[in-house]
Amino acid sequence: MDSAKLIERLHSGLPEDAVLTDPDVTVSYAHDMASFCEAGTPAAVVLPRTVEQVQHVMRTATELRVPVVPQGARTGLSGAANASDGCLVLSLTKMDRILEIDPVDRVAVVEPGVINATLSRAVAAQGLYYPPDPSSWEMCSIGGNIGTASGGLCCVKYGVTAEYVLGLTVVLADGSLLNTGRRTAKGVAGYDLTRLFVGSEGSLGIVVRATLALKPEPPQQLALAAEFPTAAAACEAVCRIMADGHAPALLELMDRTSIQAVNAMANMGLPETTEALLLAAFDTPEPARDLAAVARVCTEAGATEVVPAETAAESDLLLQARRLTLTALDRVKGVTMIDDVCVPRSRLGELLEGVAAIAARHDLTIGVCAHAGDGNTHPTVCFDPADEDEAARARISFDEIMGLGLELGGTITGEHGVGLLKKDWLARELGPVSLRLHRGIKEVFDPLGLLNPGKVF
Amino acid sequence: MDSAKLIERLHSGLPEDAVLTDPDVTVSYAHDMASFCEAGTPAAVVLPRTVEQVQHVMRTATELRVPVVPQGARTGLSGAANASDGCLVLSLTKMDRILEIDPVDRVAVVEPGVINATLSRAVAAQGLYYPPDPSSWEMCSIGGNIGTASGGLCCVKYGVTAEYVLGLTVVLADGSLLNTGRRTAKGVAGYDLTRLFVGSEGSLGIVVRATLALKPEPPQQLALAAEFPTAAAACEAVCRIMADGHAPALLELMDRTSIQAVNAMANMGLPETTEALLLAAFDTPEPARDLAAVARVCTEAGATEVVPAETAAESDLLLQARRLTLTALDRVKGVTMIDDVCVPRSRLGELLEGVAAIAARHDLTIGVCAHAGDGNTHPTVCFDPADEDEAARARISFDEIMGLGLELGGTITGEHGVGLLKKDWLARELGPVSLRLHRGIKEVFDPLGLLNPGKVF
Repeated sequence: MDSAKLIERLHSGLPEDAVLTDPDVTVSYAHDMASFCEAGTPAAVVLPRTVEQVQHVMRTATELRVPVVPQGARTGLSGAANASDGCLVLSLTKMDRILEIDPVDRVAVVEPGVINATLSRAVAAQGLYYPPDPSSWEMCSIGGNIGTASGGLCCVKYGVTAEYVLGLTVVLADGSLLNTGRRTAKGVAGYDLTRLFVGSEGSLGIVVRATLALKPEPPQQLALAAEFPTAAAACEAVCRIMADGHAPALLELMDRTSIQAVNAMANMGLPETTEALLLAAFDTPEPARDLAAVARVCTEAGATEVVPAETAAESDLLLQARRLTLTALDRVKGVTMIDDVCVPRSRLGELLEGVAAIAARHDLTIGVCAHAGDGNTHPTVCFDPADEDEAARARISFDEIMGLGLELGGTITGEHGVGLLKKDWLARELGPVSLRLHRGIKEVFDPLGLLNPGKVF
Repeated sequence: MDSAKLIERLHSGLPEDAVLTDPDVTVSYAHDMASFCEAGTPAAVVLPRTVEQVQHVMRTATELRVPVVPQGARTGLSGAANASDGCLVLSLTKMDRILEIDPVDRVAVVEPGVINATLSRAVAAQGLYYPPDPSSWEMCSIGGNIGTASGGLCCVKYGVTAEYVLGLTVVLADGSLLNTGRRTAKGVAGYDLTRLFVGSEGSLGIVVRATLALKPEPPQQLALAAEFPTAAAACEAVCRIMADGHAPALLELMDRTSIQAVNAMANMGLPETTEALLLAAFDTPEPARDLAAVARVCTEAGATEVVPAETAAESDLLLQARRLTLTALDRVKGVTMIDDVCVPRSRLGELLEGVAAIAARHDLTIGVCAHAGDGNTHPTVCFDPADEDEAARARISFDEIMGLGLELGGTITGEHGVGLLKKDWLARELGPVSLRLHRGIKEVFDPLGLLNPGKVF
């Protein structure tokens, strides 16, 4: 591929400043936040501002057969947004307008580059609520959330990104424009192409506009923290809380390693002697009543201490501690590999027990935080990259955890996606029949294989 | 195709009583509950009881190139389950076991033939709730609900069938077995094939098992009825209720024609002088408080009378009246054509006004009931089939209503599906780019075109 020709063609439909070619600049677009995933050198980075400009980029890529890597805010954790050598990085960060917020239809229409927190605050100002809240919500973009079907802390009550995407405008590989879905509350006209794009990690088309469902803003949430002497007891509490029909707005777990890491980084004063800390929050009309009921369940399941937050500020502090966990674990040994195994919540105890056994067997530090109410865990292998033997054991344990998740009826990825990091494991989870269908669908949308090649499967 | 050979092959993998060939018997499997859709004569009807038997049926169909029409309880309203001449009707009604209900994981695992009400009652006995509640819930099957992505009355709060399908086991056209999705609360491994099957009307594969999400059983709901002097005032109330952040468990509208029809059939004593009756219900911890707030909104929007139900029994009676509407409208003139247009709820008033104008222009009786909170309306054209001119006008008005729905930013089908009835209109709604992708996907799953040919698109 002739790079000069590519740049010339791109310029014919894009403003001067929308095409970056200086290697010192483009290198900063080479990868997302995943560890241990290859990243190549892009031929150029384009930053379109309009749908027509995205169409021009894709027509050019198709004409010249140049692979395209779509990118949001590059906060992903699986390498799905990593550049390959000679590719065109298509960054959607400049398409960041909120086009509409409608309280009657309860929808927002946005461009893909809008930051999750920006949207959340904008709709809150109108008494509305956009629930999906990945830990990276202050940085990550809605387009990236759609590409990876992001989760978050509130999912146990409110579900994941996928459940809030009503309709999309997509630029296909050949530059043609597709509208999927609807603005209406219901609609069953044809196949659900909207959901096919959600979580497709940029492999089927470029999302340039999204119609998102909103909810009425719930009451301010109130949280409690419960300390458990064993992970098993905490998991038992999680199962009982859910079986009793409670609807917590979040139900999170931090193990001792995570607690210590957060205290070390941010001096949060979390109780370091406890083996598992459970955080539960309610945004119901009477959260104190719900918290009291959950406190009783925790005590029955063996909690040694249950501390309800007295104020919203105290609640926020607890959640802040939880949100810091992955960053804090990064500091334990230098780097981490973050797993994202989700199991049926009835198997959560077995998963945590298995992870502890894996850590012991390989003499590794593995911190675990979990969206416990969802059975979605992030076992985080901490290691020193300079220690080759430890790094090798880290890699093995990372894989063993995924294997354990599958054995327990779970999935290798609850919310982070496949990208480069879990490609081999995806094939194991899906099996040959499903994989064949995946390849067939990919070919329907992207017959030349130009969209994010080498990712996912 | 040699019919004798087909029957012989079918028998080689199916019990004697699982293959029906007597035309007097098979004729009763020829069509669903849609009016004015062609139905042919099947070569045979098969009633498998196991996954292996379904695989045998599909392998046989593939080998002999026989088209297969999958069928649930045949309560559909778009002809999607209608037989074509010489086809094999594959009825899933005998696969009707509830395999598992798990209160911790909050899932049910079921075969496709389970009746919606049977499942709803079984999970309620364990304190759980399966929300999707089509009006036909006492007769329709879960497999049919999945095939058509059914809605219902509770969707305004709880969403549609699609949101409750976590994973599927599917027999593909060639007889191979595919597992999609998960049992976990979250999961983003690969494309969302589960949602691709939901609403695909039997055109991509045969669903033989489904893992469904459940919710905790909510408190008993309480309803009110509000009478409005105009449809516009009722729609204004709907918009204000939703913009104010209320979360009604249902928000339904019946126009005067519907009210009169229900009174005529069941002597329900509904107020016949009102132009639009709005039914709202809450299943919140304090429904009376929510109903009082909604009553105020209704009065402000111009309601002439607001009657809250004092007891659950009174509430049930109101809902029963609403559920009878389509059946009652059938009796007005002999037959009906039932539209299913869904518009953004902010456009609901315009749609109802437009439907009234269409009725006046064609001198027709068109009753309207609506899942008003969703903007999902069922304008129901009543006519005498013996009156050729009236029947022709009915057909024209039916189409005009869909056209109006699209103009208002809506969809031709909120919950009934496309089937045969709305095939031409689907192409209009989707446009050529989407339609091309639909055809491509169909070919990936069913390269020989054997599954429900001639339906949807």
